[in-house]
This record gives sequence, structure tokens and C-alpha cells, in this order.
Amino acid sequence: MALHENVKILFEPEARKVQVPKGTTVFQTVKDAGISLRSECGGKGLCGKCRIIIKKPEDLSELTEPEKKHLSKSEIEHGYRLACQTKVLKDTVIIIPPESSLEFRKIQTAGIERFLEPKPTVKKIYAVLPKPTLHDIRPDYERLIDVLSQISKFDNVEIDYDVLKRLPSVLRHSNFKTTVTIWGGRKIISVEIGDTSKEFFGLAIDIGTSKIVGYLVDLATGETLDVESLENPQLAYGEDIITRITFATANSENLRTLQNLLVDAVNKIINEMCGRRKIDSNKIYEVVVVGNTAMHHLFLGIQPKHMALSPFTPAIKKQINVKACELSININPSGIITVLPVIAGFVGADAVADVLASGICDSEDVSLLIDIGTNTEIFLGGSKDMLSCSCASGPAFEGFHIKHGMKAVTGAIEKVRMNSNFEVEYETVGNEKPAGLCGSAMIDIVAEMFKHKIIDSRGKINHDIKTRRLRERNGEVEFVIAWGHETKTREEITVTQKDIREIQLAKAAIYTGCSILMRRKKLKEKAINKVFIAGAFGNYINPENAKIIGLIPDVPMEKVEFIGNAAIVGAKMALISEDARKKADKISKKVRYLELAADPNFNEEFLKATLIPHQDLNKFPSLMRFLRSA
Amino acid sequence: MALHENVKILFEPEARKVQVPKGTTVFQTVKDAGISLRSECGGKGLCGKCRIIIKKPEDLSELTEPEKKHLSKSEIEHGYRLACQTKVLKDTVIIIPPESSLEFRKIQTAGIERFLEPKPTVKKIYAVLPKPTLHDIRPDYERLIDVLSQISKFDNVEIDYDVLKRLPSVLRHSNFKTTVTIWGGRKIISVEIGDTSKEFFGLAIDIGTSKIVGYLVDLATGETLDVESLENPQLAYGEDIITRITFATANSENLRTLQNLLVDAVNKIINEMCGRRKIDSNKIYEVVVVGNTAMHHLFLGIQPKHMALSPFTPAIKKQINVKACELSININPSGIITVLPVIAGFVGADAVADVLASGICDSEDVSLLIDIGTNTEIFLGGSKDMLSCSCASGPAFEGFHIKHGMKAVTGAIEKVRMNSNFEVEYETVGNEKPAGLCGSAMIDIVAEMFKHKIIDSRGKINHDIKTRRLRERNGEVEFVIAWGHETKTREEITVTQKDIREIQLAKAAIYTGCSILMRRKKLKEKAINKVFIAGAFGNYINPENAKIIGLIPDVPMEKVEFIGNAAIVGAKMALISEDARKKADKISKKVRYLELAADPNFNEEFLKATLIPHQDLNKFPSLMRFLRSA
Repeated sequence: MALHENVKILFEPEARKVQVPKGTTVFQTVKDAGISLRSECGGKGLCGKCRIIIKKPEDLSELTEPEKKHLSKSEIEHGYRLACQTKVLKDTVIIIPPESSLEFRKIQTAGIERFLEPKPTVKKIYAVLPKPTLHDIRPDYERLIDVLSQISKFDNVEIDYDVLKRLPSVLRHSNFKTTVTIWGGRKIISVEIGDTSKEFFGLAIDIGTSKIVGYLVDLATGETLDVESLENPQLAYGEDIITRITFATANSENLRTLQNLLVDAVNKIINEMCGRRKIDSNKIYEVVVVGNTAMHHLFLGIQPKHMALSPFTPAIKKQINVKACELSININPSGIITVLPVIAGFVGADAVADVLASGICDSEDVSLLIDIGTNTEIFLGGSKDMLSCSCASGPAFEGFHIKHGMKAVTGAIEKVRMNSNFEVEYETVGNEKPAGLCGSAMIDIVAEMFKHKIIDSRGKINHDIKTRRLRERNGEVEFVIAWGHETKTREEITVTQKDIREIQLAKAAIYTGCSILMRRKKLKEKAINKVFIAGAFGNYINPENAKIIGLIPDVPMEKVEFIGNAAIVGAKMALISEDARKKADKISKKVRYLELAADPNFNEEFLKATLIPHQDLNKFPSLMRFLRSA
Repeated sequence: MALHENVKILFEPEARKVQVPKGTTVFQTVKDAGISLRSECGGKGLCGKCRIIIKKPEDLSELTEPEKKHLSKSEIEHGYRLACQTKVLKDTVIIIPPESSLEFRKIQTAGIERFLEPKPTVKKIYAVLPKPTLHDIRPDYERLIDVLSQISKFDNVEIDYDVLKRLPSVLRHSNFKTTVTIWGGRKIISVEIGDTSKEFFGLAIDIGTSKIVGYLVDLATGETLDVESLENPQLAYGEDIITRITFATANSENLRTLQNLLVDAVNKIINEMCGRRKIDSNKIYEVVVVGNTAMHHLFLGIQPKHMALSPFTPAIKKQINVKACELSININPSGIITVLPVIAGFVGADAVADVLASGICDSEDVSLLIDIGTNTEIFLGGSKDMLSCSCASGPAFEGFHIKHGMKAVTGAIEKVRMNSNFEVEYETVGNEKPAGLCGSAMIDIVAEMFKHKIIDSRGKINHDIKTRRLRERNGEVEFVIAWGHETKTREEITVTQKDIREIQLAKAAIYTGCSILMRRKKLKEKAINKVFIAGAFGNYINPENAKIIGLIPDVPMEKVEFIGNAAIVGAKMALISEDARKKADKISKKVRYLELAADPNFNEEFLKATLIPHQDLNKFPSLMRFLRSA
């Protein structure tokens, strides 16, 4: 085989043409070309998610063992391969099936907002300066400050060096009528010609492990002008955080790669919204960023290695303010990128924003706040005292480690009901033909199977149930949710014994977190005034079913409130209100973090919580009647 | 003539080879090649200082009118040309004669220092941190701050973003034993592995219009470890400030060129001293820079245009602190470049440093401080109240606009005495054969000629004096100081009527400044407790002769003190002492600036002061006896 011989690949349905050296893996090719493709393991053949379809099998290298493991015979016959296992040998056409694409997912961008008086950290002020004469020879800067001091109180204002360089010419081109932007009452970050005080924008950004959401905000009114979201482009380097941290740890080049992906994504969001709203991005003066601690570190280019190793120490907790041009974020170059503070290695700035948005820190009442994700952050308490923890609930609710699991993208089954004949009704995202099961469907399925005794409290499938939906495949029992003729892929969608086990582990992790926090604070369920469920996933949950499987403590349903993407709401609050921002700092400092792994009761509690709803039924008194009848 | 044809030039004595397109001027060539060559006018054929010697005249373009004006016949015969008038047509050899070279000048780098307790703005602290455990999961930054707070009081410390990125790895490579550098008690600018608290350096830099001086200082002891100086490389763009400002005004590229020249020169000084002292430049944490307001603006890359136009407004007065890497200064990249505050467009940070170094702001006694240069800054007052002004004394004292004038470089006549036979004795810099007259010699000459009645009080040469030294050339009367056989160039060194007039104008400007300040403060000579004379030039002046020509007010000689390069001393004080730095800020804010041009008495006072010593002899009572006898 000749070295450096190139081959051409056409990717469908995007009709994207790429040329690469012969022998390159399809995985490497799509990564380099920026084509979106799922992967949990980062290309190691472990997750089986980077599925592609090849038109002519002979164009690719031979089938590998991992492919034989992850692909069914019928799939292989239909040309399915794993991108990471496949080297391109000839010019060819490759199809990326919808289930492997990162696009078109249903992203929860909205959250519940409460009214907040706008009082942003950046201020924009129109100032008319007296012109210099031989009898008034004050320098430009001092002339400006004197006028600003008459308008408002500014102690010890400084001026950004790059802005200072432009000051003399701006003043003279504007006939000494200028609009000044001041950050934090202490740094002039812009001087503009004439009155531009109305063009005054900010950005709130939530960098999630799998999605990035941006709000474009009018800083004068506090109004959200536009919303934009993107998949986190780091997904190509692994769906889970640990894979990405491992990649970033290898060398500083990798860390830079991951940082640049986030910076580029944020810039894409900015360009998209500014283009749509016809706004000059130089008129955006601040970006408030939240994210979990790993995203926080990766966005800032801080090595996250030590965060992933015991005792999981982040580099910094407190709020960070960096000049926009230092981070290459395309707003006003002297604008400020503010990254909200974190609480601990696994309770990040997004969780701080959750607390802010939920308002649980404003009341003396005890509330429980659960932000469900791969890591689930839990807060218990009120304004007086608050305890937090993070549980490794795993990605099962996001569709990973589930045989037919998928995220809540078009075609995902999101709601499931069963009847006493074990027949199944479902709804899908976008009302399309089903392609798999998302997290809310899994909660429904486990609850419904439990209700109809298809599984017992240990989650074990009752083999004696008489329905054609119950069957054995490759030595494992599974339950058919959708038949082949109903689905997009023409393959049956099933739930396996292992899938049920995954959901039990996930819900047990979350319940254990809640329960240990309650024990530490010596609180019972009835002391809890409110349960807030945050996170993209939250809104689609059937809360009754969540209680039945024992995901959340047994409180009356009216106390449960879904607040959606609270992280972006909290970020926006910190953007438009200095008081909210100070509150975020206080939350980061005051909220105590409990390391669950160090709790002596953890293992025992966890084991008990794996039962449905729990080993100790006294913990679910409201279910008693139902359970007894069951 | 073919376009783009190249020619080769060998510059002697540097043996430097350069290749340029045929038709390029020698001036452009030396500028591009970074070869030092004098020029007052920036290459316009006006000053006649960019003299070169060509071996084969036919290699160059034809003699121009400006060359015929500035060069004598004998010079032209010996191959002298002006670089700016001369295009290179063939491969050739060009000699740069010593008088045209900028190198080898006698630069006044030292100033009189007073003892000052070191208490620098940067602090370096060795800190041993407890290691993180599962029971102490404080993040790296908060862990560090907690320990620092035990050592000293730090409210609201921030950390430089680039340093934060390194923090996790530094702590783990140093086993949590680290040395931290904190600027201004509020910003961590360095974290280093192990105990490096002894390697703690700073730099004081004085950027003069014609020279740049640097002190390398041990910040722990306050000791000056090394001194280095360079010609200001901007000299190639004009000896005077206005020529350079005009150049910088043309476009932003030019401004950047002038800024880069200063940055490169400062870096050269740093490299030189660090190399010599075997010091890692990363261990330099702060540079305190002073310079006149034009140099201040050019060093910072601020457009100085408006400073040169009435009402001469600078961009900013207050102290500026910029991160070293933003200015590309080769110290610790997160180190701070502090530019001391200025007072007005023509009273710069160097003058503020003068006041600081002289100590006149510390005493209630009234002092007069004169920093003589092309612009002479004058201060009158004490701790209670101080008035300042700037006089356009011109470059005559620096050897410009004087027929045989030159700076105080090797071969310059620096001291002159005459006797009643009109015979002349002189001393030269470096005891070499004389090449011209520097400023101190000009003061001596005018004073001696006045004493021996060769000139009268109006400066007019008495044509009746009988000496072969007095003669007429090209319609102008001149007095021979050195005969051709004595000199380096074999040409006679003379003083012309016009030269004497230049000195009268220069000294009148300075005296008028002093006298108007005294009038404004309603003070007589006897109220002045001390006269400090600062500036490179100051130290070589004969103070008695300075008084005789009426350069300084008539105070007893014991009250006159020469403090040398006070600007660099003041810069060093601000570097090693936070108190001194605060005092500099106070000086900048409190010292009032008087615009001489706006004073109604200026013209009259100036005219009276052009006489020797003055039209009003009552102003020089101590000279009365001598004047009466004369």
C-alpha cells in the first residue's frame, strides 16, 4: 500500500466531501472534518455508538471483534459498521444514520424565570465632556473621569489599556460626546463615539457536558432577546466527562483542543444570535458562563486532571473574570467573561446557578433541589444553612448504557403506559417513528412494569408473565416496547433485565444522595417544603412514576416543581443583577459540600435504595395503599 | 534603470553588509538595517547631521543643494555626503564617521540616591500548604489564599488568569511548597515551585528622548545590581520629539514602529543585565518606567498627536499598570509594567520622578528644581504647594543648532577656560582629540567670552578684539576654540555669533521659567532654600559660569546641588517603595502646572533674560562687583 495515497469520502445525508490519506479511520475523519457523530468512549470500540452505514462494504477495512460484539448480524448485513473500527481503503460513500448524529436533539433551553430588577455589573453611560482649552488642559482620561464622577460615584476607576489607547481619537472624532462602558464600577472597558447607550447587550452561557445554551440579553431591560443552543462539540472526544478529562490530561495540546472547541462553540452561538438580531457583537460587554466544574476548567484552559482523582480538588472556587480577548470570545475585546463560582469538584457553577434560579437560598424554608444529569447535584436547606452533594447517577437517564437507549432527540420514545394485558402505548419526540428509549420513558417503563408486576421490587423480571412481549435473546430476558414494523430502524425496541438494573442503580444513587443529606441535617420528608427538579431531562418526567420507582423522596406531588434549565436562568440572573451575582458568590462560599463517598452509611443506604421503591417501605407511606394492593 | 535591481553596501567600521534595491537612499538603508546614524530632522536634508563618507563618489547619486549647504568644500572633497540626500547606484563601501554615529556617547546614568527602606509593591512569599485529603477538599486557589492570609493581610486577592492555569501543576510538582508573588496586595502574578523567595528582582527604566537608562534592582534589599543604558533608537526618526510625534501621527503603523523601538530597547537592556548577572528574567516582577509625556505615550502606544497641538492635552495623567506580556516586555509575563504618572503634556513622569528623588516635596522649605534638557522642567515650592512649568529651552545645550556642537560623547570639548590674551584651554570627554563642543563647554565659552569682553551683555562679539582666533567666515564672525591641527577632523572648531545667540535663547528660556514661577508664587531669590539641577547634562556644568550667563537665578553657590539623573533615581524609589509610589501619585495630582505660553509677562521676561546675565542687573546682585569691574 502506497503511503500518503488519498481517498475521497462522501458523507450522507450532509453531502459533505472529505479527502483523507488511505487507511484513516472514519472516526478520525469525521472528527477532523467537524462532522457530528456520537461516541461515548472517544473512539476505543467500547461503546458501539459511532455507527455508520457503508454502501459498498469492500471500500472499508475488515470487520473487527468490537464490531461483531456491538452490531447484530442483520445490521452488519445492512452495512452497519463502527466508525472507530473502520479504515477507509477506497473512494466511498458513508451514511451517518440519525441515531448516530448529534444533530436534531431536543435540547431543553428554557427555564422558569422570576422577575428581577435589572442592575447589571456593566453600566453604559453617555457623557458630554467640556472641550480642552489652554485654560483647561486636563488630560483626556481625567476629563472623562471628572464628568463620570458627576453622574455617578466611581471610586478608583481604571481604564482598560486597549481602550486608553483609543481614547484620544474617540473623543476627538465624537466632538467629546462619548458613551462609556464601565465594568464593576471600576474598569472602563469601552469608549464609543456619540450616544450608543441603547446598544447594551450581555450573554448568559450554560456549558453542559452535552449541550451549550446561550441567552442574548438586553442589559438595559433585562429582556432575553434570543436563545441559541448547540451540542457540546467535545462530544466527539467522549460523551462522559472522565473520557474528556483523560484526553485533556495527556498533554497541553489536548487541553487546548478541548478548550478551543468550547470557545468556538460559544462564538458560534454569539454569531448566530447577533446575525439574527442584527446586533454588533462589539456591543456585547459581558458574558456570564456557568457549567459543571469540569466544563468550567476546560473552558478556562485549566488542567482538570486533579479534579478527576481523589480527593477531587478543583483549581479554584471563586468567580473568575477574564478579558474577552484573552479567551478569544468574540464580544467587545475589552469585555469581560465572568465564570460563576463553583462549590466543589462535582458541584459546579451550573449548580450554583440552579440554587440562584430556584430561589431556595432566599427563604428560611427547607427545600430540596435536584439537578438530574450524569452527575446529579442535590441541595438541601434554605437561607440559613445548605448542604450539597453530587451523585454519580450515571448516564442511564440520558439513554446511555441502555440497550435501545438514546437522548431525547426526534424519534425517541418519551412516554410509556402499559395496561393489565401488558400492552404498551408510547409517545415519541416529534411524533416520529420510534428509534429508541429516552430517560423519561425508562422511568415510565420501570414504574409501569412494577405496577403490573412484570418486575418485582428487586427489579427482577417475572418469567411467568404470559405475553409475547416477554422473550429471551442471547440468554437475556427482555420486554418488547415497540415491534419491528413500528420502528424507524425496523428493529424491535426492547427493555432488558440489564436496562432495568441500570435504572435501579441510577435512581438509587439519586435517592441515596437525598437521603444522606436529610440524615445529616436530621430532617424528615415532611420538613421539606418544596422539591425542585432541574435539568434538561426533568421536565419530561412523570413525577408520580418517579416517586413509584423511588427516584425522589416521598413528598406530596404539589410540592414538586420542575424548573427546567435552571442553570441558564441563574447565569442570566447573575448577568443582569449585581445582587444576584453577589448571591452566587455567597452560595459558593456558604453551601457546605458533602462527599458521599466519605459517608460511612453510603453503601448500606445505596443498596437499600436499589429496591423499588426502597427496601424500607416506611419511607414511602403515600405508596403504601398502592403497594399493598399490588 | 531596471526596477528591483539590487545593490550591495558594506558599512564601515561595523563591517555590516546590506543589500537594497538600487536607488534606495543611504538614510533609508541604515534605518532599515538598524545601523545607528544621527539625524535631527528625520531625513529631510534640514539638519546636516547624517554625514557619511563614500569611498567612490560615483557609486552614489549626485550632490544636492542641501548637501552643498551643510558640507564644506573640503568635506565634499573628502567624500562626505548626507545619507538622506544620497541614493545608492552601485555596490559600494560607506563609512559612518564617529561624529555621525549614535554609539559611544557619554551617558549620564547615575543620580544621587537617598536611603529608602525597601517596601516594594510586589511581595514574594514562600508558603507551605497542607495537602488536600478527602476531609480537606479546598480547591487549590482557596487553599493557597488561606495560607497567605495567615502570613499577611490580603483582602480581595485575585489571581492572574495565566498563573491560575499553572497553579494545579505547580502545587503538585512542588509538593505543595510554593513561592507566590503578589502585586499591590491584590493580584497573584506568579506561583513557583519550591522556595524562590530570594530571586526577587525589579527594573527601573528612564526613557529619555535621546537615551534610555535601566537599573536592575534586588527588591529584597533595594540594592541596584546593575546599570545599563542605550541610545534611544527612535533617534533615527528625528532627534527632537516633534519630528517623532509628526511621524507617529501619520498612521498607526508608524506609531507601532516607534513603540516597538522602545520596547525592543528596554528588552535589550533587560537581556544585557540579566545575562551579565546570570538572572532569569522571569524573576523580574515589575518594571517602573518614567519618561517625558511624549515618551510615556509612545512607549504605551498611545497616539501623542494631541499632545503636540494646542492645548497640548495628554491622554492620561495617572499611573498606569499593564501586564508585561501585553507590552511584550521580557520579564515575567504576568509581571507588571508601571508607568509613573505625569503632570502635563510637557511635564512628564520623568519630572515627577525628579521631584521624588530631589525630596523637595518632603520639606516645607521652598526649593527650585531644574531638569535641563531640550525641554527644561522647572519646579518651585515645597510640601505645601508646588508650581511647575516647562520651557522650550531647545537642544543647544545638547549640542544641536550649534555649528560645531555635539553631545557629550568621546572627543567633545566639555570644559573651556580663556585668559586675558584670549588664549583657550579645554578638556575633552575621554581626553581624546576634540571633535566638537558639548553644552557645558558652550556655557563656559559664553561666560569666558563675556568675562574677557569678547562679547557684550547682548552677546554681540566685539570685532575690535585683537586675536587671530577672531575671524570672519562666509560673512559670519566666529571665534576659534581649537585649531585644525589639534582636532580629530583636522577642521577648526569655532563658536559663531549665531551659536552664542542660540545659547542666549536657551538660557533665557530657562531663566524666564524660573522667574515666572517665582513671580507667581511671589518669591524672591533669597526665599529659595535650595536649587537642584537635574539631568544628564547638569553634572558637567560649571555652576559659577551658569550664573554668569544668567542661566539660573542668583543664589549662593552652596545652595546649588547637582543631582544627576534624578529621573532614574525617582523611578527606582517608586520601584522599591510603595510609599514613594504613592508620593509620585500625589505629586502628579497636587503639583500645579503653569502654561508659560499663556502667561502675559512671558514675552517681556524672555526678552530681558536674553541679555547676559539679564537686562535687570538687580536680579544678579552677587555678580555686581564682577560686573562693575568688567
